[in-house]
Amino acid sequence: MNEHFADRLANAVRRLRTPVCVGLDPRWKQLPDPLRRHIARSPSAVADAYKKFCCGVIDVVAPLVPVVKVQAAFFEELGPDGMVAMGQTIAYAREHGLLVILDGKRNDIGSTAEAYARAYLGADQNPWGTDALTVSPYLGDDSLAPFVDTACERGGGVFVLVKTSNPGGRMLQDLVADGQRLYRRVGEHVERLAVETTGNWGYGCVGAVVGATFPDQLAELREAMPHAWFLVPGFGSQGGTAADVAAAFDARGLGAIVNNSRGILFAYERPEYRERFGPDHWQAAVEAATRAMVDALRDVARGL
Amino acid sequence: MNEHFADRLANAVRRLRTPVCVGLDPRWKQLPDPLRRHIARSPSAVADAYKKFCCGVIDVVAPLVPVVKVQAAFFEELGPDGMVAMGQTIAYAREHGLLVILDGKRNDIGSTAEAYARAYLGADQNPWGTDALTVSPYLGDDSLAPFVDTACERGGGVFVLVKTSNPGGRMLQDLVADGQRLYRRVGEHVERLAVETTGNWGYGCVGAVVGATFPDQLAELREAMPHAWFLVPGFGSQGGTAADVAAAFDARGLGAIVNNSRGILFAYERPEYRERFGPDHWQAAVEAATRAMVDALRDVARGL
Repeated sequence: MNEHFADRLANAVRRLRTPVCVGLDPRWKQLPDPLRRHIARSPSAVADAYKKFCCGVIDVVAPLVPVVKVQAAFFEELGPDGMVAMGQTIAYAREHGLLVILDGKRNDIGSTAEAYARAYLGADQNPWGTDALTVSPYLGDDSLAPFVDTACERGGGVFVLVKTSNPGGRMLQDLVADGQRLYRRVGEHVERLAVETTGNWGYGCVGAVVGATFPDQLAELREAMPHAWFLVPGFGSQGGTAADVAAAFDARGLGAIVNNSRGILFAYERPEYRERFGPDHWQAAVEAATRAMVDALRDVARGL
Repeated sequence: MNEHFADRLANAVRRLRTPVCVGLDPRWKQLPDPLRRHIARSPSAVADAYKKFCCGVIDVVAPLVPVVKVQAAFFEELGPDGMVAMGQTIAYAREHGLLVILDGKRNDIGSTAEAYARAYLGADQNPWGTDALTVSPYLGDDSLAPFVDTACERGGGVFVLVKTSNPGGRMLQDLVADGQRLYRRVGEHVERLAVETTGNWGYGCVGAVVGATFPDQLAELREAMPHAWFLVPGFGSQGGTAADVAAAFDARGLGAIVNNSRGILFAYERPEYRERFGPDHWQAAVEAATRAMVDALRDVARGL
């Protein structure tokens, strides 16, 4: 019970021999036509379509990848109905043996951060069933501490935003204060928290979000943060490639999971799959795109 | 339709002649005994108790204050049941004529930030019924833009975290880069967005979260950001006083709303009210504490 999150993640990555994380970001406009056809645009009908779509993705990817990342925003957009669908989607992912990260980028001052930590960390002990949560660092060290404590207690995981994949992330993250870029300062704080919480594989239960779209910074942060799991967004639709994320892995192929959302979910729309599959065979396109990404990363996450 | 958020806020503050914002932060351990007694600790039973408690608070404060701030974390902690209760609480607040800010401190990269903006801005056009949302700036300018666009379109409001009320906020917010503190840089960006979106009272639909616990910085930011509404947390339980927030107001008594959560919700526990009211008369204690805060701020928000 309460096995260390970093160990559970390492074991799952090794078992499937891939660091691929599939992002569950349902977007109405891109949903395959068979799931949108004849659906009212009411929140409850759309929520139901999102749940069906995500569960259909899970059916395909659960045998192939260790972990999924659920994007809270798209479910929150539907109101309470969306949140119910999000809970059902998470439960379905867990039943299929997947680790689940909620990408919620939450945080607040200490006593309120505790509530977020209890909400989302340690799948067996929270009402959502999520293993881990993404967290924003703007509120500082005392806002991160409750997440670390709860993660340790419950076998949960935390991924702190360090260097995000969007161009505008530069505005604050790349500022230089006392001779050090802000992302580096946040990264070093996360590394300290990771060192204090390491499991059997040498990684802590506190990790970092580091975008695939800035490969130099990814390499720099990997060196500065040897005990932190990286959750790497920005692969695929945002432009990140296997070569861009190569530096994220240790010699065992561990240390990073690489997320792809749109490139997998909506693979049926991609030029290379459109004719072969199309909207009616969107699940086959999900499988093809997932397998292609697994293959692409096999060359860079050596040792798995 | 879609009246400018800053105007709606100004009009509501002037109508009630107070800038008090009541924070709806239900915390199980502090719930008055009559609401906890005989309640199972299941998420749905607790969610129901939270809803009853918050609606009981709304019954008391709706005639006294213009706006409430709902803390998402405490509802999220209860899973989907909590989110349903949050939706019902927000609907109840709206029915009672209150403006509603969701304190969710959300954000993500641009295309996902759009989903958060659609989720929570502009009460008539989103499934939660909230007017405004608190937003974290760590992801930079391109993550804030979708909130500004949606707020303008729908008459919604955005409060960007600038200087938070917790001690650890210093870790990043007080760093000096290019001769300027980080909170000041974020503040100036918010001011630019506010200037671009001003309504009839001279304030934009983009405002700032600035804690009552750092009065010098509050005064500095007020001067630097004359077009941004401030949402000021940290009054009461966190130590902020009326004198600490005096600098936040313009000569008309506008420009800031001051939030109090625990000091009002759980007033029945406070030394000055404990004997007079106690848990059975917790609503009378909420009313007394709200009226006392209204009185205390009348001296500093002159002109109302």
